[in-house]
Amino acid sequence: MTAESVPAEPSFLDTDPAFPLHRGGKLEVRSTIPVRNADDLSLAYTPGVARVCTAIAENPDLAYDYTWTSKVVAVVTDGTAVLGLGDIGPAASMPVMEGKSLLFKEFAGVDSVPIALATTDVDEIVDTVIRIAPSFGGINLEDISAPRCFEIEDRLREALDIPVFHDDQHGTAIVTLAALKNAARLVGKPLSELRAVVAGAGASGIAVSTMLIEAGIGDIALSDSKGLIYEGRDGLNPIKERIAKISNRSRLTGSTEEALRGADVFIGLSGSTVEESCVATMSENAIVFALSNPTPEVHPEVARRHARVVATGRSDFPNQINNVLAFPGIFRGAMNVRAHSITEGMKLAAADALAAIVGDDLTADYVIPGPFDERVAPAVTTAVAEKAREEGVARI
Amino acid sequence: MTAESVPAEPSFLDTDPAFPLHRGGKLEVRSTIPVRNADDLSLAYTPGVARVCTAIAENPDLAYDYTWTSKVVAVVTDGTAVLGLGDIGPAASMPVMEGKSLLFKEFAGVDSVPIALATTDVDEIVDTVIRIAPSFGGINLEDISAPRCFEIEDRLREALDIPVFHDDQHGTAIVTLAALKNAARLVGKPLSELRAVVAGAGASGIAVSTMLIEAGIGDIALSDSKGLIYEGRDGLNPIKERIAKISNRSRLTGSTEEALRGADVFIGLSGSTVEESCVATMSENAIVFALSNPTPEVHPEVARRHARVVATGRSDFPNQINNVLAFPGIFRGAMNVRAHSITEGMKLAAADALAAIVGDDLTADYVIPGPFDERVAPAVTTAVAEKAREEGVARI
Repeated sequence: MTAESVPAEPSFLDTDPAFPLHRGGKLEVRSTIPVRNADDLSLAYTPGVARVCTAIAENPDLAYDYTWTSKVVAVVTDGTAVLGLGDIGPAASMPVMEGKSLLFKEFAGVDSVPIALATTDVDEIVDTVIRIAPSFGGINLEDISAPRCFEIEDRLREALDIPVFHDDQHGTAIVTLAALKNAARLVGKPLSELRAVVAGAGASGIAVSTMLIEAGIGDIALSDSKGLIYEGRDGLNPIKERIAKISNRSRLTGSTEEALRGADVFIGLSGSTVEESCVATMSENAIVFALSNPTPEVHPEVARRHARVVATGRSDFPNQINNVLAFPGIFRGAMNVRAHSITEGMKLAAADALAAIVGDDLTADYVIPGPFDERVAPAVTTAVAEKAREEGVARI
Repeated sequence: MTAESVPAEPSFLDTDPAFPLHRGGKLEVRSTIPVRNADDLSLAYTPGVARVCTAIAENPDLAYDYTWTSKVVAVVTDGTAVLGLGDIGPAASMPVMEGKSLLFKEFAGVDSVPIALATTDVDEIVDTVIRIAPSFGGINLEDISAPRCFEIEDRLREALDIPVFHDDQHGTAIVTLAALKNAARLVGKPLSELRAVVAGAGASGIAVSTMLIEAGIGDIALSDSKGLIYEGRDGLNPIKERIAKISNRSRLTGSTEEALRGADVFIGLSGSTVEESCVATMSENAIVFALSNPTPEVHPEVARRHARVVATGRSDFPNQINNVLAFPGIFRGAMNVRAHSITEGMKLAAADALAAIVGDDLTADYVIPGPFDERVAPAVTTAVAEKAREEGVARI
């Protein structure tokens, strides 16, 4: 393409403050050692570097000490499920991936590199990540559409001995569990007696439900575009079949709205809408997490008329369920102890640590810390690292 | 692996200053914009970032302006030909790749990310680089063994519309040509009348010879471990067959040493040894570039007894042929104008720009600028960018 054929920039680029902010990208790579003269060069590069390479070739564990590999995460996407925008492709996903890298660094000092892939094929994604893995100490999967994201993560966890973590699943699940634990405490109901309805059976819906089941929730039913998911429903994919087996013990059928009658908890992860009249049918002291962004399933002020605790994914209402509360500390903690994976135990420990920060300050409008609470990342880091050691997945 | 089984570090780690310098790696990723509060976050990440993604999805050229893609290079290796160490694998290659990134940044402000691959298969390397390419504005191939490096580069150049450059080939060739032009000027022989012998037919030997032929050298003969390469020699691989067709016009056979008798130029890129007695048989005003590192083919002080100009790859002798004179400015120049490739013309322009810096200061001990000469990167950058525009490979 020649200069003449570059299209004129649309006028909103001039008026929307997001555009000047993102101009030139949001990241840079910097060297951490000086190269001012030939002596510096001869140590940082040839011939000095050859001795470091030789030492690592003889003892591969030294790569942890003498390269940046052990401290850098690949933020990997195929651009198929970017925010609420859907399949916009790898190039257009880059501003989000750079944003993720920025949050990694700002919130927990984790270095990371966005890798947007020019393939959406599961085998090719898995092969590619395995091949680039020697350059990284962790793999954060991001914005990969369901159900492919489940197989990709499973296969990579199996193949690699470094942390692999699909944030859209587990980040959301960890923060949701933390908020729900505090909300349950506030309303005085044990988790084991709560009946929850989750709208949405994509990456986050499945992961949130799985984690709430692991944490011992009373019962939980998921719905997708065809209504509630129950064992034996026609046409379930393998992922939904698996979740059907362990959820919806009362075998509810029908719509999300029907299931909400008398339910204690609603968790929206679907982008759909829930009418005020349905929220009104929930149990006393209901808990509503309307997490779709930018438009919650039910407006939080409307939900608040009928529910005791309301959370959203938005920063302009109380109780923001924001992944940034989890993923920076999760990776920092796992990588600090050179964990070879991120286990369920480590995720549950992160949720507990996050919930505990609220402590005695618990109110209906404060069931989860805010993203700029400086206690968050250190607390999650410590909890994750300790659990990794306890479970024997830490190398140091 | 548990903490207990980590081997004790060898004692040289305590005494060799390279090791503390490389501890923790040599790179970090930093954000270039602030995230201090919810307002910052809502522009840098959701919801603001979604508008930038949407704009790029609608007009992919905007990725150049609103992501770091257009300014970041992948430094890709498979660890098969690292420095003089050979096939030490991806993990052990990382200190060199990080060093390369450091030089990119320090010398020309180019951001880059080391990608060491867990495969040595040509098809897999090509596929992997194509798949990660949407995340990068250029691909610097590094320390990939011959002859695979030729096919890998050719196929990637064909497949991608961003600069792809195997530095071991072309970086060395550009700097060697620049130095040779100045050496020829010093001894008063036109390039077209020089007869050269190149010891080594690996990545750099082939690339240097090809470039010298393009630049119009009189005649040039290459040798490998079996002696001189000539058309029709048994068992030549396709790369050597191709170079045989365009080199060694006098069809010399036999050894490197025999070919040196009366030759004007010797270029060592083989790691082998050339005896003083052989250098003594070269023409008057001979030019010797003994470029193997850390041990030149002939010690420069020995060569100097018989040759008018001597260069090495080492920083502790005059006339260091150092790739760092070329690759940072080459990529900076190509990426500044969003070139879709690095052409032969751009490489020749880089060599000319580099040679021109020496100007009237030319002496036998100063045929090429030193690595810390601050005129180098800007001169190469400008020459490469101008040539890219002239040849119509620039996008802006």
